[in-house]
Order: sequence, then structure tokens, then C-alpha cells
Amino acid sequence: MRLSTATVSLSGDLVGKMHACARAGFDGIELFEPDLVVAPESPEEIRALADRLGLRLELYQPLRDIEGVPPAVFDDNLRRAAAKFTLMRRLGIDTVLLCSNVATAVDPGAMPGQLRTLARLGADHGVRIAYEALAWGRYVDDYRQAWRLVQEVDEPSLGLCLDSFHILSRGHDPAAIGDIPGEKIFFVQLADAPVLSLDVLSWSRHHRLFPGEGGFDLPGFLAHVLRAGYTGPLSLEVFNDVFRQTDPGRTAAHALRSLIDLLETAGASARPPAPAPGAFTFAEIRARTPETVEPLLAHLGFHYRGAHRSRPARLWTSGSARVVVNEAPSPRPHLAALGFDLTDAPAALARARTLHIPSDFRRVHEGEDALHAVTAPDGTQIFLCPVSTVPPWIAEFDHGAPRPESSAVTAIDHVNLVQPWEDIAEATLFHRSLLGLEVDGSAQVAGPSGLISSQVMTDPEHRVRLVLNVAPAAARPGALAQHVAFRTDDVVAVAERLRAHGVEALPVPGNYYEDLAARFALDPARLDRFRALGLMYDRDGQGEFIHFYTATVGSVFFEVLQRIGGYDGYGAANAPVRLAAQSREARRG
Amino acid sequence: MRLSTATVSLSGDLVGKMHACARAGFDGIELFEPDLVVAPESPEEIRALADRLGLRLELYQPLRDIEGVPPAVFDDNLRRAAAKFTLMRRLGIDTVLLCSNVATAVDPGAMPGQLRTLARLGADHGVRIAYEALAWGRYVDDYRQAWRLVQEVDEPSLGLCLDSFHILSRGHDPAAIGDIPGEKIFFVQLADAPVLSLDVLSWSRHHRLFPGEGGFDLPGFLAHVLRAGYTGPLSLEVFNDVFRQTDPGRTAAHALRSLIDLLETAGASARPPAPAPGAFTFAEIRARTPETVEPLLAHLGFHYRGAHRSRPARLWTSGSARVVVNEAPSPRPHLAALGFDLTDAPAALARARTLHIPSDFRRVHEGEDALHAVTAPDGTQIFLCPVSTVPPWIAEFDHGAPRPESSAVTAIDHVNLVQPWEDIAEATLFHRSLLGLEVDGSAQVAGPSGLISSQVMTDPEHRVRLVLNVAPAAARPGALAQHVAFRTDDVVAVAERLRAHGVEALPVPGNYYEDLAARFALDPARLDRFRALGLMYDRDGQGEFIHFYTATVGSVFFEVLQRIGGYDGYGAANAPVRLAAQSREARRG
Repeated sequence: MRLSTATVSLSGDLVGKMHACARAGFDGIELFEPDLVVAPESPEEIRALADRLGLRLELYQPLRDIEGVPPAVFDDNLRRAAAKFTLMRRLGIDTVLLCSNVATAVDPGAMPGQLRTLARLGADHGVRIAYEALAWGRYVDDYRQAWRLVQEVDEPSLGLCLDSFHILSRGHDPAAIGDIPGEKIFFVQLADAPVLSLDVLSWSRHHRLFPGEGGFDLPGFLAHVLRAGYTGPLSLEVFNDVFRQTDPGRTAAHALRSLIDLLETAGASARPPAPAPGAFTFAEIRARTPETVEPLLAHLGFHYRGAHRSRPARLWTSGSARVVVNEAPSPRPHLAALGFDLTDAPAALARARTLHIPSDFRRVHEGEDALHAVTAPDGTQIFLCPVSTVPPWIAEFDHGAPRPESSAVTAIDHVNLVQPWEDIAEATLFHRSLLGLEVDGSAQVAGPSGLISSQVMTDPEHRVRLVLNVAPAAARPGALAQHVAFRTDDVVAVAERLRAHGVEALPVPGNYYEDLAARFALDPARLDRFRALGLMYDRDGQGEFIHFYTATVGSVFFEVLQRIGGYDGYGAANAPVRLAAQSREARRG
Repeated sequence: MRLSTATVSLSGDLVGKMHACARAGFDGIELFEPDLVVAPESPEEIRALADRLGLRLELYQPLRDIEGVPPAVFDDNLRRAAAKFTLMRRLGIDTVLLCSNVATAVDPGAMPGQLRTLARLGADHGVRIAYEALAWGRYVDDYRQAWRLVQEVDEPSLGLCLDSFHILSRGHDPAAIGDIPGEKIFFVQLADAPVLSLDVLSWSRHHRLFPGEGGFDLPGFLAHVLRAGYTGPLSLEVFNDVFRQTDPGRTAAHALRSLIDLLETAGASARPPAPAPGAFTFAEIRARTPETVEPLLAHLGFHYRGAHRSRPARLWTSGSARVVVNEAPSPRPHLAALGFDLTDAPAALARARTLHIPSDFRRVHEGEDALHAVTAPDGTQIFLCPVSTVPPWIAEFDHGAPRPESSAVTAIDHVNLVQPWEDIAEATLFHRSLLGLEVDGSAQVAGPSGLISSQVMTDPEHRVRLVLNVAPAAARPGALAQHVAFRTDDVVAVAERLRAHGVEALPVPGNYYEDLAARFALDPARLDRFRALGLMYDRDGQGEFIHFYTATVGSVFFEVLQRIGGYDGYGAANAPVRLAAQSREARRG
């Protein structure tokens, strides 16, 4: 099927949007009238540019407030429509979107006759009219009403435009779409949206998302459209305050990825097998000054496994937790890469190609493991690693047998990545479509510089947990740090080991422990132990959670945690304590 | 009355918040528990700091989910409450906020008895309990229910907390407040909010505003509270995602200003006479390179009136429009100051003092007009000018009689100021409380880099029109420009004069004129004239609007406009055309 987007989904000027769509790989675009009106290029230039870029101009949009009006108003509306039909010929566009009247309709009885007159005028100009029930239309606000009107008018040049937002936001059952003859569906617009209890107009104009990023069942919607026999373009029409601000080239690539993923999810195109991540293979910290990071790892009980034979990198392990410390230049220590154990790494690589995610270039010496990697929207490198108890690349570091395992850290429990606020939708789609991670809850935590949104993404079995944190918009870049959380079966032992090396965990205020005592009625001895070691605590119906944080090095810190019983959360109630302490630490420099 | 704010209304850490509140002039604060929990200072330190700063710790908040629960749960809740009562003694706080149960209530019948037990426990600790009906309480969500419970329990240590948000957001009539004995109202929290169709919990947690900045009738609410005989503190509890990010010192000053204004509006304190702005006295552009600005003014028909006798400034006038071009150092040409003609300038100055707005220091030579000025949140200097046909300070510039008036610009019609997105509430309150300007409509216009919110503020007679534009958050600072719009009775003549000097107005695309023809069926000769001169057009039921823009110099440009008939708008439909053209202009450099 032809893939398209409305120009209103992107920022910038019309020519820039067209280039971005062509580069991303779209087949065509909907031309949103205001984008043309403000453009200095003539309609003929736009048409010629579209030809050169191989972009079809699929739709001109929108005509508004035409039908159901007094005769004198309708005459003026026809004049207005005729001017646009003439313009469309110059552009080489044969379909126009007509929104159901929201403002000037006074007489629904006049609608069939006026739509017929408009349709015949369109036919005279070679224009097809795609009539769309807006969710807030004055009389027509349901696609089934629009379809009845189209049937009643019964003109070949009048058909439907179906927009998933207008249908699903109102909770209308899309099943009846399947019974509409495909050739009477002139156009299909796709948009997702978060579930919000907001008036539908504001919701539609500001908060739409690309398919798969919100709460609507787009695959189900698309299945009905396909069942109807529709063969026209699938076009994204996403009014979103953030995408209006982001780089159009990047947003276009993100948009196309959402459509590709949707087609697969809906079964409209073949989906390669899921890569099924089962664990973090490793985390890589880039630090020009490894002496700021490596002592922390050592004091947490990690073993030094050796230097890489060709890269300026060293490996530290504890249980299945592996941390690579890479001395490659970087402005300050940061979490640079994550490896994922995948049951089918080649499938993941194929999936990246399908999703137009380029592979990173990596130099690999003879005899080294040629791992493939891609770059996530936040710049973190994602390594697609074949699952293996002892990955072959470990030998590239090892200079001898590892010391016997005695350490208490057993695995990487989760990794928190900081996302710029404008990229969270793109990042969510990236990790979902590439790795099959799904959103599994979200929270907002209060820090001293604002609220931080935190979204968990996991595989179905919660073996890989990625937490995406969004900093407040006014926060200076880098105000939030990333972190790797290590799991252990004895967090007290790890904390004591750290303490024995003279290293303090992130300080926790006394007030916290008093509040903890009030909330949980903990055994006083246990509470004293927590206080002495800077341990924090949480509990729910399933179990307990005990954890501490290290100081921040550059923009990265570590957490060590112990899950007791079935506790499956992240101690979100303690996050404000951490944020406040880190803010004090940062002020002290 | 004692003025207070909850610590949650501000960003930063507890000690920083307390200093900010004291500096702003608050009498006390509500201590929001999470602010204490994350603080390293002991309760005794906080108490001692409050003493030193002269801040009363008015309230500890909140206790949650105590009442209406099974007996075993209630026992644990009592233990939790007792721990907090003990803590309150250490803090020296005698009143605690108890929110109505939202989560654990199962038995409303148990509420009176459990509240009585809690109240007696409070009395044992010297603690008064202020019970508040949350708008989303499980059983108690209306202050009238809470009041019936308090009456039924009939304990001296149990009273009410009234929060304007919880009452007005639900549309509950606050009139019954006046019938509650004042001494049973233990605490009053004030918050405004924009009118949103959003679920009340999200609305409350993210979008509250300070009084006078939203859509609630806070003066009416406060009148009922005063009628009840309440004499306790008036305290702001404003959960707002933006204020959590802004400088706490500035937000505290802003917050206190809102309370002072509210007390006056509600008649609880004397309000000085309104300064009643009647016109813009002048606009001052600061440009180290006046040759970038002055030719534009000359070509628009402004007269050069001379250089100031002691300042590096020159005056240009046309009709009542006055523009001062000041060569004082500035990174780039920008709109630095606005003068307002005030019927009572001394009253405005007194008002500024009342609102804790400091006067700017100005050096004035003997014999010069000692105008007073203050600085608006966006940095624009606001001059409070006594109204006068020919202000005395003009003589400080004049070096002779002005040339005969022949110019077509008659006045400053409006001024657009760009506001950082985090400052719009503060700016709105500033201009309203100081100058008596009221919000008169708002619009969102699409620019190539995102949506721009535009809010008009005017005096009741629309003689002074200030437009506050908010740039998209991701926009680079300075991406939007300020502008001064000049009114004329013959915009065509002004445009032709500019053209005759070889200066082009901001270019308007041909597509715009084709769309204009389709929308308005304009006379073709008139349309051609518009096109030739780069004029834009709008029309509504009241009249017509014709206007053009100059190129941008630094961060400022001019608009020239003609209002025909009763057109009272700003041509918002044309703003996207301007924004796109300015973006192209900026890219070309």
C-alpha cells in the first residue's frame, strides 16, 4: 500500500517537509492547505518538485463548512470550492478532503442536495471529494452518518475519508467500515492518541500521536479498512505540538517507522520473528577518565576481566552483569551503549533494516565478534547480541581465567535512560518496534527542578527493563543522569563492602527514615541498619525492595537493589529523595 | 490577614523555598511533607530557620487515607498519624491537613467514629486537624459533606480546610461557606485554574494557577470565607508543572503579588484607584546601531524630533506614535521599553510598591522629567507616564519646531511582546495587577517551528493593546521577534511611501493572494493593489483590516495597519504567513 503523511505532521516549510518525506521513504503526502498558502513556491513548482522527488500529492486538505447552509452562503461556498478545484488541477491533485460542517451548518436537510451539487462541480474539475465526519461536527460527527449521506447523494465523485482519530476518540465501533465498498473510501487517515479525558477538539489538535504510540487500536481499525477492500494510500495526519517543533527529517523517519510497524501488527505485511530480548548483555560506559568509574565497580564487587585486544576498553563483570568501560573520547563519563541478549539477533538486524534504522559502522579486527549495533533516538548505541551464556566477544578481553565468583551483584536489573522531552514518543516506538519492548507503566516523580516522567518498557517476561525518564523542559541539558541498576541477593553485603572501601552511598536524609518508620512500622534494628548504610526501602502487596545509589560520575550513576518476594516495581516513592540528594551533590560540584 | 504559601508551589529544596518565601514577604508557609522527607535538615533546624526568617509554619500537610477503613487498618493509620503528630511538635506546627480518603475507604459509616478518635489523638498532641474534601474523594468530595462530618464528630480539635480548587473545580456553590462558624475553618487554601475539560485529578496536580490567573471566581470565594469570620492564614497551594521549574525567588514574589491583588479585588484590603492606561506614550528601541532602525522609521513617515539632551537617544514621532531610539549598548536591536499614558501615574507607582514591584533606578538631570519605570517579567521597562497631549519630556529631545505633520501613521495600535513559555502567568498577572489590563482573547498560530500562543491584554476601552506571544518550548531563544504595530488611516499610502524609498515590506507569497481571493471574493483591482504592495487582509462581521510588516531588525519589526469599520482583531489568520516569511528571512540571514 502507498504510505503517506499529511504535511501538518511535520515542522518547517513545505519544501523542507517534502524533502524530508521523500528521504524517509514515503510514497506520497497530503497537502495541508496552510502549508501551501504560506509558501513562496507556485503550485506548479510544488507539483514539479513532487514529481522530481517521486512523491505523489495524494490529497488536498481541507475544505471546511460547506454543506447544510442557506442558499446564498452555499453559492459563496461553491465559488470558494471551485477556486480550490482549479488550484488542485494546477497541483495535479485529484482528491480533496471535505470536513463535515462544524460552524455554519443550519439545515441538515440541505446537506444531500448541496453535497450533490458540490460533487458534480468536483467531477467537472476531475476532483473526487472525500467527506469526513469530524468528531465535533455540528450535525455529522460519526462516519456511519457520513456514509449514509454519501450513499444518499450517490455521485461517483463523492466518497468517504476515514480518520482513525475521529472514529476511535468518540468510541465509535469501526466494524461497520468493513461493510463499505472499498472504492467508496477515497482516503484513510491514521492517527493514534493517548487516552485523555480532554475535550475532543483540544485532544485532536494538540495530542495526536503516530500509530502504536497511544491508546487506540490502530491495527484493529486498519483491519476493517482492509476488509472493506480499500487500496488507496494510508496517510498519517498527526496534529501534535511536539512534532511541530522537532526536526522534520527525523520526524518523517519516525512517522514512516510507525506505519511500517502498524502494517505488520495488523497483518498487512509480513512480520519477521520477534527478536525477544532476554537480558542485558552488557552496559558500556564511555569515560576518558576510567579512574572515575572503575574503582566504583571494583568496590561494588565487580571483577576486572581485562583490556580489549584492539579497543581502548576494559571489561568488568559480576554474575551476569557486564560493564565495559571505554576510554574513547567523550565530554564526560556517560552510558554510551547497551547490549541486548536476543534469541534471534539476525532477525533483529533484519527488523532494523525494515524499519529504516541504519546499522552503525564498526571496525572489527580479524577474529573478533562482529556484533551489530544501531543508535537509539537518545544517542545510546544498541547492540543486537546473539544470546549466549559466555558471549564469544568476552574472549577479546580476557587475559586469563576469571577470579572465582564471589560477588553479590548478579545481573543488570534495569537501565534508566534520560530522554529529551521532545523525543519520548520516538524513543518509545523505537524500542517497541525494534526490540518488542512494551510500555509497562509510568510514573511522575517530583524533583527539585520539576516533575520527571518515567516510563518503563519491558519484554513480556520482565527480563529486560528499560526505564525512559523525561526531564522537565526548563532543565538544563544533562541535569538528569542515566543509571544502571544492578540486582543482588544481598544488598546489605554490597553496601557494607562499599562502605568498607571508604566509599559512601548517596546520602539519605534522616527525615526519610522517620517517614519510613511511620509508613511501614519496620523492625527498629532493620531500620537502623538501613539508616547506617544509606539503604532505601519500599514494599507492596507482593514483596519488598531495598536499594541504594552511588555518587554520580559524569552523567551516570549506579543503583544496587534487592527484590524480595514478588516486588516488581522500582521504588518510585524513593526517587524524590534521590533527586534531591543528587541536586545537592551537583551544587557542591 | 497572614499570607502563606505551600512549599509545593515552588521549585528547589526546602531551605531555598523558605528563604524565597521570606524574601518575597510571606508571613508563613504550609510544609508539604515530601519537601521535608527529602531534606537533610532536621525538623529542629527547619523550625529554627523559620524562626530566624520570621516565617510561621502554618500547616503540616497532608495526612491521607485515614478514615472509613477497617479497624485493623485504622489502628495502623493511627500509629502513622501519631508519628506525624510527634514530628509536628518538633517542628512547632499545630495544624495538620487531612485529605478525605481517596484510596482505602470502604465504610463511610466508620468515618465519624474514626475521625473522633483521630481528633482526640490530635488533641493529646496539641494538634488541630483540618479536614478537606478532595474533589476526587472516595466518599467525601464536597466541602458541605466534610462540614456535616465535622459537626457530627463535634470535637474542638477537628475543623475544616477549605481549598478553592476542590470546591470551584467541581462547580460546588461556595455560598454555604459563609454560614460555617469562622473558628471551625482551620485553614484556607487558594488556587485558581484555567477552565479545562480535563479530569479533575490531572487538572489539580498539573495546571493550578495563582489567584487571578485562571477562570475561577477567587474574589467571590474569598468573600464567603471572610463572611464566615475566618481569621487564619490565606495560603496558596498551587500544583503547577511550570512553577515547579521556575526560580523560586521569582515565583514567590509572583505568588505574593497574586494574593495582594486578590485581597484588594475581594475588598479585603483597600485598592488604590486604577491607573487607567489610555495610550502608549512611546516605545523605546535599543540599538547600538541606530542606522538599522531609523531609516525604516523615516521611510514610514516618522519625523525626527532631535537627540535627547543627556541620553544617547533620539525621538521619532508620527501623529501620537512616538519611538525613542536609544544607542545604549545592547546585544542586538530590541524593544527595550514602553511608556503608558496613565490618568493617575502616582497611583500606578503606589500600586507597584504595594505589589512589591521595585522601581527602576534612573539618572535624571536637573530640569528633566523624572519618569518612573518598573521592569516587566520579560525584561521590558514599563514607564508610568502622566497623561498629557505633549508630554514635558518631549522638550528634552526637541531642537526646534517639528516639521508640519503630514505622515499617515497616527498612533501605536498595539505592541507584541515575546514571553518565555515559563513566564506567561507571571506576565499576565503583572500587567493586570499593575496597569489594570485584562485578558481579551487568545489564539494559537502555527509557525514553521511550532505553535505560538498569543494572548491579548487591553484596557476596558481597548485603547491600549498589549499582545503577549509565547514561543514553542523547543524554539531557540530569540527565535520570535517583538513588534510595534502602528495605526494609520491610509495603509496603502504608507506602503507606497516605503516602496518609493526602495524598501520592500515583508514578502507575501502569491499563494496567499489566491487563497484570499477564494475566501473573500475581493474586487480584483483591490486584490492586485494588495499584491503589488505586500498588503495582507482580514475581514469579520464588523469591518476590515489591512496591514503589512517591515523586515526584522535585530529582534524587532514594525507593522502598519488600518482598521476599517469596527474590526477589533489582529489579523491572526495572517500570522502564519508572516511567521513563514520571517523564518525564510532569518535563514537567509
